[in-house]
Amino acid sequence: MRKIVIVGGVAGGASAAARARRLSEDAEIIMLERGPFISFANCGLPYHIGGDIEQRDALLLQTPESFKARFNVDVRVQHEVLSIDRQQKTVTIRDLINQQDYQESYDALVLSPGAAPIVPPIPGIQNARTFSLRNVPDMDKIIASIDNNKPKHATVVGGGFIGIEMAEALIQRGINTSLIELAPQIMAPVDPEMASPLHQELRHHGVDLRLGVALEAVFAPAGEETKEELANEDSEILQLRLSNGEVLETELLIMAIGVKPETTLAKLAGLELGELGGIKVNAKLQTSDPAIYAVGDAIEDPEFVTGDAALIPLAGPANRQGRMAANNIFGANEQYQRSQGTAICKIFDVAVASTGLNEKTLQRKGLDYNKVYVHAASHASYYPGAHPVTLKLLFHPESGVIYGAQATGKDGIDKRIDVLAVAQRAGMSVFDLQHLELTYAPPFGSAKDVINQAGFVAANSISGNTRLCHSDEINQASEQQLILDVRNPGELEKLGAIPGAVNIPVDQLRERINELPKDKEILVYCMVGLRGNVAYRQLVNHGFKAKNLTGGYKTWLAYQASH
Amino acid sequence: MRKIVIVGGVAGGASAAARARRLSEDAEIIMLERGPFISFANCGLPYHIGGDIEQRDALLLQTPESFKARFNVDVRVQHEVLSIDRQQKTVTIRDLINQQDYQESYDALVLSPGAAPIVPPIPGIQNARTFSLRNVPDMDKIIASIDNNKPKHATVVGGGFIGIEMAEALIQRGINTSLIELAPQIMAPVDPEMASPLHQELRHHGVDLRLGVALEAVFAPAGEETKEELANEDSEILQLRLSNGEVLETELLIMAIGVKPETTLAKLAGLELGELGGIKVNAKLQTSDPAIYAVGDAIEDPEFVTGDAALIPLAGPANRQGRMAANNIFGANEQYQRSQGTAICKIFDVAVASTGLNEKTLQRKGLDYNKVYVHAASHASYYPGAHPVTLKLLFHPESGVIYGAQATGKDGIDKRIDVLAVAQRAGMSVFDLQHLELTYAPPFGSAKDVINQAGFVAANSISGNTRLCHSDEINQASEQQLILDVRNPGELEKLGAIPGAVNIPVDQLRERINELPKDKEILVYCMVGLRGNVAYRQLVNHGFKAKNLTGGYKTWLAYQASH
Repeated sequence: MRKIVIVGGVAGGASAAARARRLSEDAEIIMLERGPFISFANCGLPYHIGGDIEQRDALLLQTPESFKARFNVDVRVQHEVLSIDRQQKTVTIRDLINQQDYQESYDALVLSPGAAPIVPPIPGIQNARTFSLRNVPDMDKIIASIDNNKPKHATVVGGGFIGIEMAEALIQRGINTSLIELAPQIMAPVDPEMASPLHQELRHHGVDLRLGVALEAVFAPAGEETKEELANEDSEILQLRLSNGEVLETELLIMAIGVKPETTLAKLAGLELGELGGIKVNAKLQTSDPAIYAVGDAIEDPEFVTGDAALIPLAGPANRQGRMAANNIFGANEQYQRSQGTAICKIFDVAVASTGLNEKTLQRKGLDYNKVYVHAASHASYYPGAHPVTLKLLFHPESGVIYGAQATGKDGIDKRIDVLAVAQRAGMSVFDLQHLELTYAPPFGSAKDVINQAGFVAANSISGNTRLCHSDEINQASEQQLILDVRNPGELEKLGAIPGAVNIPVDQLRERINELPKDKEILVYCMVGLRGNVAYRQLVNHGFKAKNLTGGYKTWLAYQASH
Repeated sequence: MRKIVIVGGVAGGASAAARARRLSEDAEIIMLERGPFISFANCGLPYHIGGDIEQRDALLLQTPESFKARFNVDVRVQHEVLSIDRQQKTVTIRDLINQQDYQESYDALVLSPGAAPIVPPIPGIQNARTFSLRNVPDMDKIIASIDNNKPKHATVVGGGFIGIEMAEALIQRGINTSLIELAPQIMAPVDPEMASPLHQELRHHGVDLRLGVALEAVFAPAGEETKEELANEDSEILQLRLSNGEVLETELLIMAIGVKPETTLAKLAGLELGELGGIKVNAKLQTSDPAIYAVGDAIEDPEFVTGDAALIPLAGPANRQGRMAANNIFGANEQYQRSQGTAICKIFDVAVASTGLNEKTLQRKGLDYNKVYVHAASHASYYPGAHPVTLKLLFHPESGVIYGAQATGKDGIDKRIDVLAVAQRAGMSVFDLQHLELTYAPPFGSAKDVINQAGFVAANSISGNTRLCHSDEINQASEQQLILDVRNPGELEKLGAIPGAVNIPVDQLRERINELPKDKEILVYCMVGLRGNVAYRQLVNHGFKAKNLTGGYKTWLAYQASH
């Protein structure tokens, strides 16, 4: 009989425990959770604060009792593991209720401690109106603060998943909300021009979005009898001092600038950490001590494209890793595959999703790449309810192998990124995307889906059928280049145009082609790139030198808004 | 300069023409369309009849004039190609307006004639109240008949895509509607048990669904001065004589039993047809005459799993084939890949979709296969708006390579089949499905998506971690087998149970395991298969022989309803 001790009772830990029991009735399985809850829906916390998920109980997927009944796992909540004795194969545990320490031996140990919110040492940050959100008690405190203090204004620091979801939740609760992000964009997994519509969506719903701004200190304003001082446990109003010199008064502050792997225990035990500070594991999910496995947000994953270490604090990988660690403890010899970091976030009515590497990262890593943008309807445009999908596809400039993809829009975003995540994992190239047979009926898709279209454009680009250009080239057009707008004059009037562009509507281009100079390179664009390609092909077939702006004016506008 | 003549101006033909022009400004391109419209949205026709698509114009994506302006294609509507002289490379064309015949030469000819509705020689079928639906004039006639005659009752014959969409459209127009299908199920692309919820959905919305019934004759009822006789052009009420002896009075009859490739012209020209009666083409989409290409509903495609000929009258392949034929005319040497026949249909609030081969076909072709069923929520069940997804996955019993997949439900069906269509095309196995990283946030998915779950179950089954059984085995359980229901008693009371099953709730199984006989094989089931697997693993780990019913009671109920 084996004895398995699991540290952490949420996604990775609970998956490991349940799977271990399914593999063995004999094993003794102990799951130790520092907090009061196991298996809670941490991705659901902001939605309960915002009211979408009405019942708090809905978030508590398992209790120690239900887990015991179903899986015969000895679940101990509010038990914290203090240290590991790797020689003796024991852990020292503190019962947080009665503050007593005791030991348990293990044959296999699984570490699933998760990640902790990063709270930087900002002066005044330790106060009664400042929270982070990682678990049910955190959520309860935020709700209590809202219910008791009825803040009229709240501030969220950090424009990642939790920050965005919290901003939306607070707005839904009727609280004026500012969102402060240090970077010039929210949602770091996507590139700046893809984040631009997200900024619009937040502002459209009343979020006071402030980009490129850091929180530097938190003060309590001077009262009748008190001087201005750093905020403390008694402060009811917080004065946020921002890096741009502005001061923001707020009554509720959510710190959501990110999370860091929880490695205290691993470090103490002398387990090897990776270059990014996460617990280092091999493909079997073993730490540097083969009797100790680690899973979830605390570990470093190999990133899909490069194999480089990456921190990917997502629920999907955590759950699958927990299951796999249990398999391997029982001898399965399974290998965790590289992570793409596929993710999605709802921002009011818009979704943003991504998989693989973004352009920022490709540049940082010095990888050669090419990119295309497609804007197309989420389903047949003649059927009600179609919304534009904006898709960015990054790929190897010769082989066309997919590096990554990003999409935004109100409908069908999850589907498109799921399809591309599978295609990428399968090693498909953009040429393969042309042939994908996806479900089509007018309520669901298009005969040539966005994905097929991205494949066509990218394949055309690699094969030389199309030469593409991008917004930065358009903006730096030389004397030897001419910018040609092939939209209809009504579109230019309504939506504007790129400065310096000459306008010849695509359907007049054949008869007016002689108006264009043969000694210049023509940079063509339309609204989304489709008519631009028709015009481009006409031009090159008539002997002109030309390029087509991928994604058209729509992508150019997003680029301008983000640069 | 080349001269390209294209026969047919809708999906395949229009795609070929547009692509050809993008490849060459010099080529002379003539597109001949027998009907009055090109590039219309034939998939949208039922939705205009039903009122979802309000504007008829929305269906007319291009006109001859717009196509000429953009692509410089000589579009001739109401021009029918009567014959092909392959030696001379000419076609004889009839101008249907002034009934004059003339000839055009070609260097390359593209046949995209589509498919025609099958209207069997049923006595009385030629009458003024009977229609089929393939193009805009057909649609106009049906709408005119509804507007003029205000039928209180309509009948649709055929439970395929168009039949189902028409039944829904007629119900939306407030017309009592019967749907008659010869087979014991609608939606032939899926298996009977997967069609069962679709039958429920139709009946729930008031469709009088009659399965296993054929239409044998159409009579006009006896009037005061007329005898009963076969229906004719003057009949205002149709008496449908059905194969089960029933008579159904109706005022509007839609024949939608299927389509057949339109091969008149190809046959006349001596082009080779395939075994299923479609035009035979090679991978480059050339017919037996290399100067003649054929695309779309009129051709036979190689089916993905076997490479066997298949008729796949879908818009997606037609569009991509048209584009590819043009590429190959200009020397691209592209190969059309095998078709999976990925398809989807909306049935009121439910979607049904499939890709690859179904079980009926695998059996008919004598292929070894295994199958699993998963019922899971379309997104995190604690977030509002989650609906069950029912997924059936068919795969090779040893390698796990995907043969096909089917899904039904109210949400996320297109996404799941798209993902599986890509996985199948990429040659992935069920083992790979375990590792797919799909978008997850509570409004969009689950940390372990339906697809991952299907991969887990199927991989467990192949690796021997789980032995699965199916409804037919449960129904034929022998004396040496015992059926064990591990749901809670409340579920049995509310939803019923499989006859003869013993009930021990999963969470009591450990303590009550000695109630079970060790000399019998235990066939375990729960509601959907998940608790069944937990119980199954307990049983085998305690030395019992057991199997788990994949898909659980929910799949058993669907099986019962369909067998």
